[in-house]
Amino acid sequence: MADSRFFACAGPFRLRELAEITGAELSAGADPDAEIGDVAPLDTADRHQISFLDNRRYLEAFTKSQAGACVVMPELADRAPDGMALLITSKPYRCYARIASHLYPEDPVTQSRHTSASVDPAAKVGPGTSIGPGVSIGAAAEIGAGCRIGANAVIGDGVVIGDGTRIGANASLSYCIVGHDCEIHAGVCIGNRGFGFAMDPEGFVDVPQLGRVIVEDNVEIGANSTIDRGAGPDTVIGAGCKIDNLVQIGHNVQLGRGCVLVAQSGIAGSTRLEDFVVVAAQAGVTGHLTIGRGAQLAAQSGVMRDVPPGQSVGGSPAMPIREYMRLVSSWKRQGKAKVKDKPNE
Amino acid sequence: MADSRFFACAGPFRLRELAEITGAELSAGADPDAEIGDVAPLDTADRHQISFLDNRRYLEAFTKSQAGACVVMPELADRAPDGMALLITSKPYRCYARIASHLYPEDPVTQSRHTSASVDPAAKVGPGTSIGPGVSIGAAAEIGAGCRIGANAVIGDGVVIGDGTRIGANASLSYCIVGHDCEIHAGVCIGNRGFGFAMDPEGFVDVPQLGRVIVEDNVEIGANSTIDRGAGPDTVIGAGCKIDNLVQIGHNVQLGRGCVLVAQSGIAGSTRLEDFVVVAAQAGVTGHLTIGRGAQLAAQSGVMRDVPPGQSVGGSPAMPIREYMRLVSSWKRQGKAKVKDKPNE
Amino acid sequence: MADSRFFACAGPFRLRELAEITGAELSAGADPDAEIGDVAPLDTADRHQISFLDNRRYLEAFTKSQAGACVVMPELADRAPDGMALLITSKPYRCYARIASHLYPEDPVTQSRHTSASVDPAAKVGPGTSIGPGVSIGAAAEIGAGCRIGANAVIGDGVVIGDGTRIGANASLSYCIVGHDCEIHAGVCIGNRGFGFAMDPEGFVDVPQLGRVIVEDNVEIGANSTIDRGAGPDTVIGAGCKIDNLVQIGHNVQLGRGCVLVAQSGIAGSTRLEDFVVVAAQAGVTGHLTIGRGAQLAAQSGVMRDVPPGQSVGGSPAMPIREYMRLVSSWKRQGKAKVKDKPNE
Repeated sequence: MADSRFFACAGPFRLRELAEITGAELSAGADPDAEIGDVAPLDTADRHQISFLDNRRYLEAFTKSQAGACVVMPELADRAPDGMALLITSKPYRCYARIASHLYPEDPVTQSRHTSASVDPAAKVGPGTSIGPGVSIGAAAEIGAGCRIGANAVIGDGVVIGDGTRIGANASLSYCIVGHDCEIHAGVCIGNRGFGFAMDPEGFVDVPQLGRVIVEDNVEIGANSTIDRGAGPDTVIGAGCKIDNLVQIGHNVQLGRGCVLVAQSGIAGSTRLEDFVVVAAQAGVTGHLTIGRGAQLAAQSGVMRDVPPGQSVGGSPAMPIREYMRLVSSWKRQGKAKVKDKPNE
Repeated sequence: MADSRFFACAGPFRLRELAEITGAELSAGADPDAEIGDVAPLDTADRHQISFLDNRRYLEAFTKSQAGACVVMPELADRAPDGMALLITSKPYRCYARIASHLYPEDPVTQSRHTSASVDPAAKVGPGTSIGPGVSIGAAAEIGAGCRIGANAVIGDGVVIGDGTRIGANASLSYCIVGHDCEIHAGVCIGNRGFGFAMDPEGFVDVPQLGRVIVEDNVEIGANSTIDRGAGPDTVIGAGCKIDNLVQIGHNVQLGRGCVLVAQSGIAGSTRLEDFVVVAAQAGVTGHLTIGRGAQLAAQSGVMRDVPPGQSVGGSPAMPIREYMRLVSSWKRQGKAKVKDKPNE
Repeated sequence: MADSRFFACAGPFRLRELAEITGAELSAGADPDAEIGDVAPLDTADRHQISFLDNRRYLEAFTKSQAGACVVMPELADRAPDGMALLITSKPYRCYARIASHLYPEDPVTQSRHTSASVDPAAKVGPGTSIGPGVSIGAAAEIGAGCRIGANAVIGDGVVIGDGTRIGANASLSYCIVGHDCEIHAGVCIGNRGFGFAMDPEGFVDVPQLGRVIVEDNVEIGANSTIDRGAGPDTVIGAGCKIDNLVQIGHNVQLGRGCVLVAQSGIAGSTRLEDFVVVAAQAGVTGHLTIGRGAQLAAQSGVMRDVPPGQSVGGSPAMPIREYMRLVSSWKRQGKAKVKDKPNE
């Protein structure tokens, strides 16, 4: 199904093999030697393709699907249409991810340096790294092994990039130390001076921003997101963080491990997120706060105070999610209240 | 009035000609042979220039304007100052657009390929296309005829671009099929992998994103906006959509024809907008929803549920606009309520 | 403390000298000949380093700090630990900024033009300007003296840039006149056509955008921000404005002097901000408004009406901040109200 202009399929594979690599259980009656050549959505898959069901919104599509096989959780297995083989697992999306990666492995990176790239003589580039057209790599920069540096990306003086990290087209990195196996997407800007200045009636005085951005291993940063360098302490993006597109991270921010920041969210300066915090889309966190481990900040929430570990908050200004839900119920009643009630207020 | 550094004026033209090309009616007493050499705002226009009135906020400026001519709707024609020629039409802004385009036609694109551009030998480039400095065009990419590819833009392997489409400076396109006569502005990122991963206590597993971005004809995409490729199905931007700056479109999103997405709005994954939906600035739509034809989402609204065709919604979480307006009235009362009322609650 | 990969320290300096350049008062008993070699945060500074205290959140860190010296306001001086020298001033952050700039002066710009840059023969470039790899400078552009143009930046035809201005990597400038001593960060897009089109049932008609962007002197524009050119009048960014990352400025917007726009905020078309307006993060201002001198718009606020000079507003839609605070108190009560109260409403 995937467009061969862009994706090369390594399949087909037998169902038996897909069950093995994922640890899912093959449903009774399914033919373990049936061949699966591709992945496809429930509504378009044919009998040579495998799909998955992870969201009950798509239950009807599942029951009508022509897919030859489907990854599904045990409690929905009995809703499958006749003749569909099932890979049964408590984590269908994760299991589907492994199958799709098996069918469509990532392109290997091969060592190359485009003639139009400008690599400073004092920069180091590891073996097996691919440097695209128009790339600029500054003095004393250190690029690891097996990296892919996309066309027209700019790697500033002294920047360090770990092994296996991929940098997207037109990304701009400066004043940063990036770990291994990261994926920095197109247009990302890392290391610009933070928004630090003294304000008073005489005008603004820029405060030198003398920190760096530390991006730990296995981090993903989405297109056109911006991460400012620290003012003195560093800005730190913890290992395994997933940052979506158009996200703003201010100076001195510290993200723990495995935080998820969805598109267009923003974290103001000097705020610290402990491990595994989730910041939903368009949410904002003001500066100098601590957001506890595993906290969840709802979409468009505006967080003005510390959030304890594990707490979910919503609203602007944000409050505990149960209170916010009650407030929203109250808003709905107010929105529906007849105007004639006004005099009684 | 326009700065000749940047814009070349094709005028002057006689009022008669401007009436003809727009279909507007020339006011009684106006001299059809009067020459108009330029467009200008109401407050600065002189008697050789034409202006327009489309917003009643500017009615006072209209009554005081020295403009030689003005495009105006019939019901405001009698407010014109003495001596001003009028082009009367029910659609003044549209009419003004045609006049301004007549005075300032777009620069023609002339075939060229800058010596610093890197065009893969296996890429195809149509006749009459201009390729700027530092452009990178990947293997098997296909660029149509009469396109303009701005400096340092990056067109990835296999990307297809239709005739007459213009790509801005530093834009990054990958995994996409773009129609004809589109305008993709500077810094836009199209085709990055969607924010798709399985989350569980063991960590994140990336889900291969095997779809594309399909941009249909006559689409405009504003500076630094980001559009992720589909996870399996494609992300689709319908014909004639107008997308402003810094807008985020998640994977698998489908926009119908003629949708308008204003700056800093965002659409989460797998949501579908039917034709002619308007999403105002900084609004957000959560994933897996359907927004009906012609629906209007107010600025900063947060849409968490399907919206029926034609409905206007506002607020976060969003509700029908009439309810939202009533809620806002209630908020205003609460904001003005004296503190001494508190004990009575 | 600053990483020598990225920053070169000009110190050490004696306390006496730091007091002189800042005008701060050295505390009684402090040794004016003590040498300070670096700046550092309160919690990590040692006795050869200077820190500052500007926010009472860090008062405890101050009382425990090992810093050799600290910049502090008079009223907190008596909280200093024994043996810490103090530079006492009513403006500690400003004073610290001067000290840090003295220790870490900006790299001087030296005249250079990378061989991979494409400079149109009809462009003018002033003396002492540095042009990085892959830069594209268009016909009739004029770059001043002592500028730094970052790698892969694109300067369009006719663009004017004043002396001492720095342009970041991958920035895209067109249709603009930029003043002196500005700092335009990486990925910024200036001068794209505004979001101007006539909408009606027959479709959209683009309205030619015939204005420019005027960026006055000493302006800072953060990474990946976007500023559209005017439709006829110019878009104007007043002298000394500070614009953070991912900010959107629509066509015809006029910012007065010294406005501050924090990350992810947006100003819609034709709105005017008078001098010294502060727009906090993720706030939005709708079009055609006037925001009075010194007004303050809270984070995530949605401003739909003119704001008088000096007024602070909050909320969406925005209201005077005192009313908004009262409303927020009311929301908190509603959020905490027990469900059993519902029947009594």
